[in-house]
Amino acid sequence: MVRGMDMPALAQLSIAADLAALARDLFEELRAAHHDGVGITRETYAAGETAAMRRVEAIARGAGLACAWDAAANLRITLPGSDPSLPAAACGSHLDSVPQGGNFDGAAGVISGLMALLHASRQPPRRRTLHLFVLRGEESAWYGRPYLGSSALFGMFDPAWLDLPNLRDPTLTLGAAMRREGADLAPIAARQPLLDPASLSHFVELHIEQGPVMVARKVPAGLVSGIRGNHRHPNAHAIGEAAHSGAVPRWLRRDAVLGAADFAMRLDASWRTLLERGEDLVMTFGIFATDAREHAMTRVPGELRFTLEWRSESEATLDAFGELARTEAQEIARERGVRIELGPGVRTPPAAMDPRLLAHARAICTGAGLPHEVLASGAGHDAAIFANAGVPSSMVFVRNEHGSHNPREAMDFEDFLRGAAVLREILLTGAEAIGR
Amino acid sequence: MVRGMDMPALAQLSIAADLAALARDLFEELRAAHHDGVGITRETYAAGETAAMRRVEAIARGAGLACAWDAAANLRITLPGSDPSLPAAACGSHLDSVPQGGNFDGAAGVISGLMALLHASRQPPRRRTLHLFVLRGEESAWYGRPYLGSSALFGMFDPAWLDLPNLRDPTLTLGAAMRREGADLAPIAARQPLLDPASLSHFVELHIEQGPVMVARKVPAGLVSGIRGNHRHPNAHAIGEAAHSGAVPRWLRRDAVLGAADFAMRLDASWRTLLERGEDLVMTFGIFATDAREHAMTRVPGELRFTLEWRSESEATLDAFGELARTEAQEIARERGVRIELGPGVRTPPAAMDPRLLAHARAICTGAGLPHEVLASGAGHDAAIFANAGVPSSMVFVRNEHGSHNPREAMDFEDFLRGAAVLREILLTGAEAIGR
Repeated sequence: MVRGMDMPALAQLSIAADLAALARDLFEELRAAHHDGVGITRETYAAGETAAMRRVEAIARGAGLACAWDAAANLRITLPGSDPSLPAAACGSHLDSVPQGGNFDGAAGVISGLMALLHASRQPPRRRTLHLFVLRGEESAWYGRPYLGSSALFGMFDPAWLDLPNLRDPTLTLGAAMRREGADLAPIAARQPLLDPASLSHFVELHIEQGPVMVARKVPAGLVSGIRGNHRHPNAHAIGEAAHSGAVPRWLRRDAVLGAADFAMRLDASWRTLLERGEDLVMTFGIFATDAREHAMTRVPGELRFTLEWRSESEATLDAFGELARTEAQEIARERGVRIELGPGVRTPPAAMDPRLLAHARAICTGAGLPHEVLASGAGHDAAIFANAGVPSSMVFVRNEHGSHNPREAMDFEDFLRGAAVLREILLTGAEAIGR
Repeated sequence: MVRGMDMPALAQLSIAADLAALARDLFEELRAAHHDGVGITRETYAAGETAAMRRVEAIARGAGLACAWDAAANLRITLPGSDPSLPAAACGSHLDSVPQGGNFDGAAGVISGLMALLHASRQPPRRRTLHLFVLRGEESAWYGRPYLGSSALFGMFDPAWLDLPNLRDPTLTLGAAMRREGADLAPIAARQPLLDPASLSHFVELHIEQGPVMVARKVPAGLVSGIRGNHRHPNAHAIGEAAHSGAVPRWLRRDAVLGAADFAMRLDASWRTLLERGEDLVMTFGIFATDAREHAMTRVPGELRFTLEWRSESEATLDAFGELARTEAQEIARERGVRIELGPGVRTPPAAMDPRLLAHARAICTGAGLPHEVLASGAGHDAAIFANAGVPSSMVFVRNEHGSHNPREAMDFEDFLRGAAVLREILLTGAEAIGR
């Protein structure tokens, strides 16, 4: 869908007409090549992903850019600078998709990076080398373990993942699929880093927004403050006591539904309070259900199973919310005789985007008069792996409707061009802005 | 289990030792005859129920009481009085059970009634006739429609019920089962009353308590103020919008779980308030579940299905609570963008116990120094059918642990004897107390 643009022409963020046309054509070509009848499918470490990468490589080579495949079969496209002693500026994203996904999740980051390198290749030679990383297996929907290519870059690829079976074809392991697509498993299995984080000045990734904030706020460009980490409790329970719904009065009940509802409302109230204090937080009870084998309309429910996930950019907020959840659980046990058991938890740490790069990105947008908004990324991205490896990182979000991972992704092409220009400026000027 | 009795001997409420022994033996005999390996099974309009009724009939006939079977195959045991113009005093209960149920639910009411008539038969002749109704199909677990025998008494048996299939043997209809056990279906099908409510001065039924109130309050005898009616919504929904759990902030969510939890907490708060004002009410969300096909830990839930039931002795309270639920639903739609749809409702009216009989029963207990408590009956009983047919009615509850409809029913035999004596006094003196 095409949304009207009421913005003035933004000279600093202009894109050459032929690069815009190249991007538009490449999106269409990828869409046509990987439409599965419902949406877009570019399978991880398989023909679809590799074909898309080779198409990008062909365009880069045609424009004189250097291309190299690493041991994880990631593609690195390079515009060499005149001073190899300077750390290189990098951008990148992925080309795999979920099954029946959308065309923009991942590809928008790769195509905008390609445009940035092509743009720079037409300008006078630069001292600093530029890289575009076209990364493998960010979604990894067929193996259940995301960020494969970027993890391998920094020696964070757990060799145990090589044995993960393909979820659609369990006779195929991830390791075999990687080898088939050209990977060299020996350094991966030895956890050898394929890249020294100190060799990069910074990393920037463009991505469609996967939430509704930018559409709701009517801003085309988003600048990411951080990538949320999360705490997850996949198997939590509220445990009370089953009883006759007519014969047991309130003071003698231990109603698991009311206990769990009380817990949810207390956490919701705390969530609201933390947001008012400016903390970053989302919280979700994704599953919340009485037991289908036992429940009945005329029975006070004795048990309810739920999942609880909370996400924040801030490790401190993640920990504080968990503490709060445990305190509220104790209150509910005391007040309602219902035991809230969160069960085992799983933690993923947040990834901070570099605040100096963020300030620089804001200055770029403000200088160009581009409406923008600073927001957290709720979903994970390769940029989180770069950030946690020690590379100052930054992300640009492009307004997009209907979320991602579905064929209804709707990014306006004009919005993409603005975002691509912001990515380009961060790539080209970010290192100086942060003194690397 | 036997609980210690710290009460003084209660002369007015004494039971002859041989009647107590008869009751104890009869309970044991019924338990032995109908133990199914797990609990007690006396199937409605089938061999188990009929055998238990015939055993009671045999004892009654042996003591010279008159016995008659009506068109619904209910058994009526009578001690005729000298003045047939006086309306008869009646008691009664049922002998069917749920599958794998307990031995006391129903049988305690019949055995206590039998003891009352045997007691009266040893005294000087009375002017007023006494009846014990041994009623068919109160549980009716095999046909799903309770109060069959008492409904037939007053022409409230819907002829459509005759076609109900037996849930365990669908080739057998209720009508065929009734005929097999001796019923005459013609008057039933014609909705002919088998009994004129005006022919009875009052009705009293003893039953074990099916809730935990009396055990918790340590009182052996309960006097029932009314039998709760209910409003039921078996197919209610909270409808929001599914979304990515990481990427959608609180202000853009329409979280069905939080909407439903909010609804439950608001109703819970109103419930508490109504109880503080002295209203009778219980409320239960028996089923409360996100959709197993759609829910996931990382998805804001778009829908939750629930059931809602509330019960009260008071029709006004039932209506007021429904009004309140609808108001809260509107608030939640406004505040959370979650639609609460209660869906179609089913209503069962409450049955008021006669307040003069209740006052008389309290006087009996108080006069004898028997600790007692006035409470509502959450479950339905044959007494509700008598009350709604216009017979002034009363119920005596006996303390019981672990609820009913399960083999763990635990009524102390001493408690039963106290309750049986209270039933007897209400049967013998209730008519005069209320001027009939």
